[in-house]
Amino acid sequence: MTNNPVPSSIHGHTRWVIPGGCIPLDSHGPEPDCTSRDELIILNTHDEDAAVALHVYYAERPPVGPYRIRVPARRIRCIRCNDLIDPEALPLDTPYALTLTADRPVFVQFIQRYFGQHQRYAHPLVAYPIGD
Amino acid sequence: MTNNPVPSSIHGHTRWVIPGGCIPLDSHGPEPDCTSRDELIILNTHDEDAAVALHVYYAERPPVGPYRIRVPARRIRCIRCNDLIDPEALPLDTPYALTLTADRPVFVQFIQRYFGQHQRYAHPLVAYPIGD
Amino acid sequence: MTNNPVPSSIHGHTRWVIPGGCIPLDSHGPEPDCTSRDELIILNTHDEDAAVALHVYYAERPPVGPYRIRVPARRIRCIRCNDLIDPEALPLDTPYALTLTADRPVFVQFIQRYFGQHQRYAHPLVAYPIGD
Amino acid sequence: MTNNPVPSSIHGHTRWVIPGGCIPLDSHGPEPDCTSRDELIILNTHDEDAAVALHVYYAERPPVGPYRIRVPARRIRCIRCNDLIDPEALPLDTPYALTLTADRPVFVQFIQRYFGQHQRYAHPLVAYPIGD
Repeated sequence: MTNNPVPSSIHGHTRWVIPGGCIPLDSHGPEPDCTSRDELIILNTHDEDAAVALHVYYAERPPVGPYRIRVPARRIRCIRCNDLIDPEALPLDTPYALTLTADRPVFVQFIQRYFGQHQRYAHPLVAYPIGD
Repeated sequence: MTNNPVPSSIHGHTRWVIPGGCIPLDSHGPEPDCTSRDELIILNTHDEDAAVALHVYYAERPPVGPYRIRVPARRIRCIRCNDLIDPEALPLDTPYALTLTADRPVFVQFIQRYFGQHQRYAHPLVAYPIGD
Repeated sequence: MTNNPVPSSIHGHTRWVIPGGCIPLDSHGPEPDCTSRDELIILNTHDEDAAVALHVYYAERPPVGPYRIRVPARRIRCIRCNDLIDPEALPLDTPYALTLTADRPVFVQFIQRYFGQHQRYAHPLVAYPIGD
Repeated sequence: MTNNPVPSSIHGHTRWVIPGGCIPLDSHGPEPDCTSRDELIILNTHDEDAAVALHVYYAERPPVGPYRIRVPARRIRCIRCNDLIDPEALPLDTPYALTLTADRPVFVQFIQRYFGQHQRYAHPLVAYPIGD
């Protein structure tokens, strides 16, 4: 396996915003593959770990956070929002928006996977990069 | 439940444009979960409410608006475009584009959910942020 | 019906690029609703018509164009790429990329709808705005 | 067939980042149409070929690359990530992120197609352009 140096000029953004999250109550099919879920994928191209903090905004409750996540150097990290439990679990079937702040620039993809009785889909939501 | 301060430097944009809207005539399954619809999610991270105005553009009619929406401070608001009725209801099965202007910067996600006889899908459309 | 003035400061971009187009050969279900297709939606918020030119890039043939389209003032226009025939029809089942140039700034959404035997889906592709 | 000159001012970006890739293990239906896959489409509008290098980031392994790809002048190139084998094949069912660097500006679209037992979908992921 070659292990060529990766371009150091690929950085990312320290702040991201993702409106439109919602973890469905409803799942059909064998777990955990068919568990309806929101997935957050974070890429850290740097030579040091990145410390990430998430805050969650709701329609009818004050925002909650921070949820703290570590992304190792030169790695991706995949998080099921269903698994975020500290400071509290995200309520199911409840729309939310995420804000993400990191101590070094990262890249983000947010994917919704829904295995429901009346519909099955997977699609990314738009994650808005802000700041450097 | 912790309630840590959310970073104040997350703002958004005061103008957004979303081409490609269309509320299908066709719905299959129990209402309201399986009502075909266009959804607009707006995030207001500010400490004051945001006043939002929507205008709707069509292919064969003059634009209509404003539709006025209030998004509470530090909250999201989810709107079914099917429910926009003042100054007039959006016609079904008719392509449209939305423009959004807000009195403070916000973030937007636009999701189409279609529960039709020949197809079921959910996906976001691209919402273009413009201005600050 | 009210007809309030729409904010004049919403403009758009004069050039757009959309890689990833492909019109499937395969359609299942009643036409024209279930005809597999690529759709281009263009929004012109200006008080004058917009003149749009499309060019099509392929993997194994030189680019073809311009395809000329008029978008009326303060209207959207929805085009099925399947219907683009002058200077030549787009070949089916053949990947392509579109470039769009307009004589005034516009907004664009590009949606693929596929009604195939083994898969049905609808999703937007990313349309990249360039220039002002 | 006309062959009008294409606007030379359409360029692109020399660096792109795509988090969220994953080639499913699972395919149902006739090959190769129904092979689950990640597709990368690259547009080169220039009069000279573009040399592209990909690097792949993982959650639990060091990044791998470069994978070298040539995109002919004024053409698109469509690549199934399943077919990237030098320096090594991408492992199946394993999340990854791609970084792309090109010696001239290009445009990119990234599409996931999944023909699984419990779900079938197609959607683009967001590809982030960086640099000029």
